[in-house]
Amino acid sequence: MNEPEVGLTTMARFLGATNVDGSRTYLEQLDPELHRYIVEFVYGEVYAGDLLDPKTRALCTVAMLACLGQQLQLGVYVRSASRLGASEEEIREVLRQVAVYAGFPSAWNALATMQRALEDFEETS
Amino acid sequence: MNEPEVGLTTMARFLGATNVDGSRTYLEQLDPELHRYIVEFVYGEVYAGDLLDPKTRALCTVAMLACLGQQLQLGVYVRSASRLGASEEEIREVLRQVAVYAGFPSAWNALATMQRALEDFEETS
Amino acid sequence: MNEPEVGLTTMARFLGATNVDGSRTYLEQLDPELHRYIVEFVYGEVYAGDLLDPKTRALCTVAMLACLGQQLQLGVYVRSASRLGASEEEIREVLRQVAVYAGFPSAWNALATMQRALEDFEETS
Amino acid sequence: MNEPEVGLTTMARFLGATNVDGSRTYLEQLDPELHRYIVEFVYGEVYAGDLLDPKTRALCTVAMLACLGQQLQLGVYVRSASRLGASEEEIREVLRQVAVYAGFPSAWNALATMQRALEDFEETS
Amino acid sequence: MNEPEVGLTTMARFLGATNVDGSRTYLEQLDPELHRYIVEFVYGEVYAGDLLDPKTRALCTVAMLACLGQQLQLGVYVRSASRLGASEEEIREVLRQVAVYAGFPSAWNALATMQRALEDFEETS
Amino acid sequence: MNEPEVGLTTMARFLGATNVDGSRTYLEQLDPELHRYIVEFVYGEVYAGDLLDPKTRALCTVAMLACLGQQLQLGVYVRSASRLGASEEEIREVLRQVAVYAGFPSAWNALATMQRALEDFEETS
Repeated sequence: MNEPEVGLTTMARFLGATNVDGSRTYLEQLDPELHRYIVEFVYGEVYAGDLLDPKTRALCTVAMLACLGQQLQLGVYVRSASRLGASEEEIREVLRQVAVYAGFPSAWNALATMQRALEDFEETS
Repeated sequence: MNEPEVGLTTMARFLGATNVDGSRTYLEQLDPELHRYIVEFVYGEVYAGDLLDPKTRALCTVAMLACLGQQLQLGVYVRSASRLGASEEEIREVLRQVAVYAGFPSAWNALATMQRALEDFEETS
Repeated sequence: MNEPEVGLTTMARFLGATNVDGSRTYLEQLDPELHRYIVEFVYGEVYAGDLLDPKTRALCTVAMLACLGQQLQLGVYVRSASRLGASEEEIREVLRQVAVYAGFPSAWNALATMQRALEDFEETS
Repeated sequence: MNEPEVGLTTMARFLGATNVDGSRTYLEQLDPELHRYIVEFVYGEVYAGDLLDPKTRALCTVAMLACLGQQLQLGVYVRSASRLGASEEEIREVLRQVAVYAGFPSAWNALATMQRALEDFEETS
Repeated sequence: MNEPEVGLTTMARFLGATNVDGSRTYLEQLDPELHRYIVEFVYGEVYAGDLLDPKTRALCTVAMLACLGQQLQLGVYVRSASRLGASEEEIREVLRQVAVYAGFPSAWNALATMQRALEDFEETS
Repeated sequence: MNEPEVGLTTMARFLGATNVDGSRTYLEQLDPELHRYIVEFVYGEVYAGDLLDPKTRALCTVAMLACLGQQLQLGVYVRSASRLGASEEEIREVLRQVAVYAGFPSAWNALATMQRALEDFEETS
């Protein structure tokens, strides 16, 4: 596996450098092993590849989480996509497409999550 | 709603101009109303927006279908993403990420579908 | 696609005439395009068919939403089924059947949503 | 729980009297306990209620199975709905509605299952 | 089906003798039929078998509910597994494994539910 | 992360020493990165913990895969559970319980997969 630093650098790219410590503290108290898997495997390996540009990667994550109805993590990745250059309208286009593949209630719920995530994001940035 | 031609033009962009007639014949015999919804609503409206570039849109569709385990339609959109400029390695990066959000069996099944889809694609193009 | 009025008339039949404006205002601020898709496609096309009687259609929607765990929209359609003539006991029979196909937790959650939806419904009607 | 005969009578109503023995033999060799649960609980209890008319009940089952992507059992209940008086067009209306709640691929797959189920049904009846 | 007492005895084994009355009162007011199915079928039949030891059975239930995202019932079975001898670390091992099969967000949500369930459990015992 | 050997040793424990090479060759040609993630992360980390006994772990995997409808991987883990000491009747008990949480069609499909997996297993061992 990659060096530990790779995970932290990648995490900063996707979650924002100022959010890494807070995320890690939360995950560490939730479960030290899950925390380690997220740093070393999710960010240290899967997200560390540079063949897919980060904005596209974050939009694909938004697409997946909206289809799976995972609202908590969707909010995090709506802000990530925004941070990496996706416009609100691009994120909306992805979420409208969710209606086609996972149904209208999933698209509706995801758009509501997106609105709250971007409001919080603007307030704190 | 948009003019009927919009749906057919958009369908050609994503599925390939030479595949539109075959797809429509299949859908028409499956259900004339579903066929009409796909031409007029899915391609005539949802996919017709030009704010998201087509390659990113197709990769987001790949991400969604892999998470939902819809192998038939996933094969179609792996070829679509490829047609719109996504490299095999970019598609693989999206499908590896599926392991993180929908689990390893979904990623595994999607990669197997991708391999078959790209083999067929190369043989017929 | 059908004339725009078809969607609004159908929406009034399923959601109640007095709820159409409120629903549209909510959807409009959530996403203008999703709002338009729901009026023109969901109600203007899919729900507009008259070959399936409205009560049966609403009960099938209740069945689908309960299996998918979409509680927000389930509450809306429990009231819709009730408005279109389904008795509370008929709705309960559909939700008990959810235990067979989607498992007991889905049936349990859906029955809790039904209770809250019918309480609110009686208070406001 | 109800008397054992209740389950067999209800099973005959939904699956067709001539199919009960074949279904039971299959389930018995699959798992004797699951077989018993299906006769005594699913048909002996859940389906035995007479407050919901059998045609509506079978259409709700079709709606649920299509949303859950359970093609094998969906084929059985498409034939059941047909046997209990649902027209092909009514079944199609339910399955088109699946596109709204569970996405187009689920509706598409369900319509393909419906076609095969009704073809087999006509050949053997 | 088994005698009614079997269900109540089994329910006491998995939910704790002091929780049976409260659970039944809640289920009874939610839906008398669902209540009866849970006592007579779920606990009276499925959970009543003694070929699988109760601790393993409860851990398998934890595994299933975490994959299905059913947080309410997951909390109940985290406490059940704990009551039947599973250590917190054993439950965590099962939930970390959820990341592999149903994705990291499902594992994350389940671990958060577990923490709350065990806190409540310790306070009341 | 753990040493590479840990993953291979753990893989041998769960899949059978004689199946490791075949599995790795298959995964390697499917996707070299997914292969590496499975050896180093899934078996090298998640399955490597020794706080949960291997038989219980394999039965929990069976429970998860049956709920998620992942038949291919379910077959592999039915054989793994069997190899680690679970009797056919114990596996059946877990799969009957799937009916309660994920519905009867999921339990039914899983039992059919189990039968095929154990037949193949006996033939080759």
